[in-house]
Amino acid sequence: MSLDRVRLARAYLSRVAEPPAPALAAFVAEEGPVRAAELVKAGKVPSSVEGQTSARRAEDRAADDLRRVAEVGGRLVVPEDDEWPEWPFNALVLAAAQGLRCGLAPLALWVRGKANVAELAERAVAVVGSRAASGYGQHVAAEFGHGLAEAGIVVVSGAAYGIDGCAHRGALSAGGVTIAVLACGVDVAYPAGHAGLIARIPERGLVVSEYPPTHTPARHRFLTRNRLIAALGDGTVVVEAGRRSGAKNTAASTSALGRVLMAVPGPVTSVSSTGCHDLLRSGEAIAVSTVAEVIESTGRLGVDLVESTRRSETTVGPPQGDAVRVHEALGLVGGNSADVIAVESGVALSTVRALLPALEMAGLAERVDSGWKRSHAQDRCGDA
Amino acid sequence: MSLDRVRLARAYLSRVAEPPAPALAAFVAEEGPVRAAELVKAGKVPSSVEGQTSARRAEDRAADDLRRVAEVGGRLVVPEDDEWPEWPFNALVLAAAQGLRCGLAPLALWVRGKANVAELAERAVAVVGSRAASGYGQHVAAEFGHGLAEAGIVVVSGAAYGIDGCAHRGALSAGGVTIAVLACGVDVAYPAGHAGLIARIPERGLVVSEYPPTHTPARHRFLTRNRLIAALGDGTVVVEAGRRSGAKNTAASTSALGRVLMAVPGPVTSVSSTGCHDLLRSGEAIAVSTVAEVIESTGRLGVDLVESTRRSETTVGPPQGDAVRVHEALGLVGGNSADVIAVESGVALSTVRALLPALEMAGLAERVDSGWKRSHAQDRCGDA
Repeated sequence: MSLDRVRLARAYLSRVAEPPAPALAAFVAEEGPVRAAELVKAGKVPSSVEGQTSARRAEDRAADDLRRVAEVGGRLVVPEDDEWPEWPFNALVLAAAQGLRCGLAPLALWVRGKANVAELAERAVAVVGSRAASGYGQHVAAEFGHGLAEAGIVVVSGAAYGIDGCAHRGALSAGGVTIAVLACGVDVAYPAGHAGLIARIPERGLVVSEYPPTHTPARHRFLTRNRLIAALGDGTVVVEAGRRSGAKNTAASTSALGRVLMAVPGPVTSVSSTGCHDLLRSGEAIAVSTVAEVIESTGRLGVDLVESTRRSETTVGPPQGDAVRVHEALGLVGGNSADVIAVESGVALSTVRALLPALEMAGLAERVDSGWKRSHAQDRCGDA
Repeated sequence: MSLDRVRLARAYLSRVAEPPAPALAAFVAEEGPVRAAELVKAGKVPSSVEGQTSARRAEDRAADDLRRVAEVGGRLVVPEDDEWPEWPFNALVLAAAQGLRCGLAPLALWVRGKANVAELAERAVAVVGSRAASGYGQHVAAEFGHGLAEAGIVVVSGAAYGIDGCAHRGALSAGGVTIAVLACGVDVAYPAGHAGLIARIPERGLVVSEYPPTHTPARHRFLTRNRLIAALGDGTVVVEAGRRSGAKNTAASTSALGRVLMAVPGPVTSVSSTGCHDLLRSGEAIAVSTVAEVIESTGRLGVDLVESTRRSETTVGPPQGDAVRVHEALGLVGGNSADVIAVESGVALSTVRALLPALEMAGLAERVDSGWKRSHAQDRCGDA
């Protein structure tokens, strides 16, 4: 199966359903992208997939979309590519397996910029916040963006007005690298006032989206997009957020994905900081006042000095659904191969393959010579 | 044993040793105050007590001190009195038993003001912070003092410049009650610039100290005093504190005594808030932004009605509802046909047809000649 055919199939699939489309994702995992695309086009799909794809299935613009993205210096990155951010997106796979709404990895990623997606995501932190930011918030976002970039950390944000824009610009001003995750096609400059910024980011960094070219933003797309911002960073810093800010949605996704959630304190007299203070008060977020504290909080063991004590509190709960069945099928003493686990569990092989690394991350499975076995951390599952 | 003799004995004991004097306290607990005072005067004490009392044992100014405090409208409150704050000081007794430095209840309490000490301490919160407070910190301290007093809560603080003074004044401005705990005699106006404030507090509230009249403040006395501030409140709010502020000492005592420690967030660009942010980051303190949150955090079960508006307000996840997507695909000016809406939204045509009348009923969509458009109620969706 050539990678070109896979890419064409995934380009089609990325347009045929509105993300998140869990039934389609499961179908693609089971059938493989090329066959899944053929079956969707032919309408030969289970009713759950039918519901998600019937409206657009006749519309095959895959080749056009790939041409269009190439015109703006972009490409489609697919899970079959080496640069697919497997590790960051595993958290989405695991979350989806647990039935969390913020779960589900994208079927493909439309990308502008030459940088390698997986490499950039290796050491990245999301910096997000309100569009209606105060001067204080804008200042802090720019400082954090600058400082993180200086420390060699990629700044992930959403290219919106306010905090997002300041975080991107701060990173650029330090000669650093930043990733903008859009809620529209990567060829669409939204917001319009950030067209220049969005054009500059791919020079060293990336503009990415799960939406195909020409897709325009919509409210639900911002919310769906937020999970990717959360997944691509080791942690998320909320610089400023009103009580009902979209940034609080990114914050919720960050926690659900087991990433480190941080919030910047601000004046209690400022409504722009209310959301941050709520996150601090509830204990969901760790307070960060400096770039050094952000690095300390998100540090990976062995890379940075301090591993946040609170990180363990955000560990994901017991696995659910397919994950449970896969977990049950793991060897108790020796390892089982993925094929054996698939048969044992009745879960599609591709899903098994996607879930095993996620279970490993959760400390529930470990790789041994003969395949996969349960890790001792299984006790943490309790009565799951 | 008359209460007068006890009071005279404790007046003597309160001057004979520099607090905290754990050996003397233990000796008094064992022998009773009257006999302990006689033995101390006679020098017939264990060597540990001898060390704490030898320098001043010949100096018996108990009667003079009682006369002096009466002249400024005060009195000496002793553990044998009904108004002794038994319950608040129990934490000090317990902490002393654990060998904590911030432990040890005072031998007696010099008090100015007519109010009953135990009654006032029944529902009190300490509000403390830096002397070198910012305008922001002073504003918040005054607001918190005012708001707590309005809620019928006694504001405890240390009468210092900066945060302390603003907290007291805030309470007074609400016609409320406040307690100033001094690190000197209650007849000594320190700091001098707060002489007027310290004179006003006893009109409804109390000025208290474990130091006898005429005692002047000293650095170690402020630290010793801080444990009483922490003990008299159900909790302590640190409004502003530099990294080495004395308020952090009060904060440490608060935690050690098992009281609720709270910190007010502030701009991360302000050094005056560094201490507060350290307390939040380490998890020692709970973030409080409003008086309601202070009351919620310190509230005793059954006494306060927890304001839980925020609790229920869980962050919105990505709206999975097809209805949202259909709504997004409605025409803004003219109408869109159901087919167009299906393609735009990626929702199956049959679902679109089912949802449109429902959206219409909800006031979110309206039928026009050319199809369906958003109704004016769209504003309720807010922007992403």
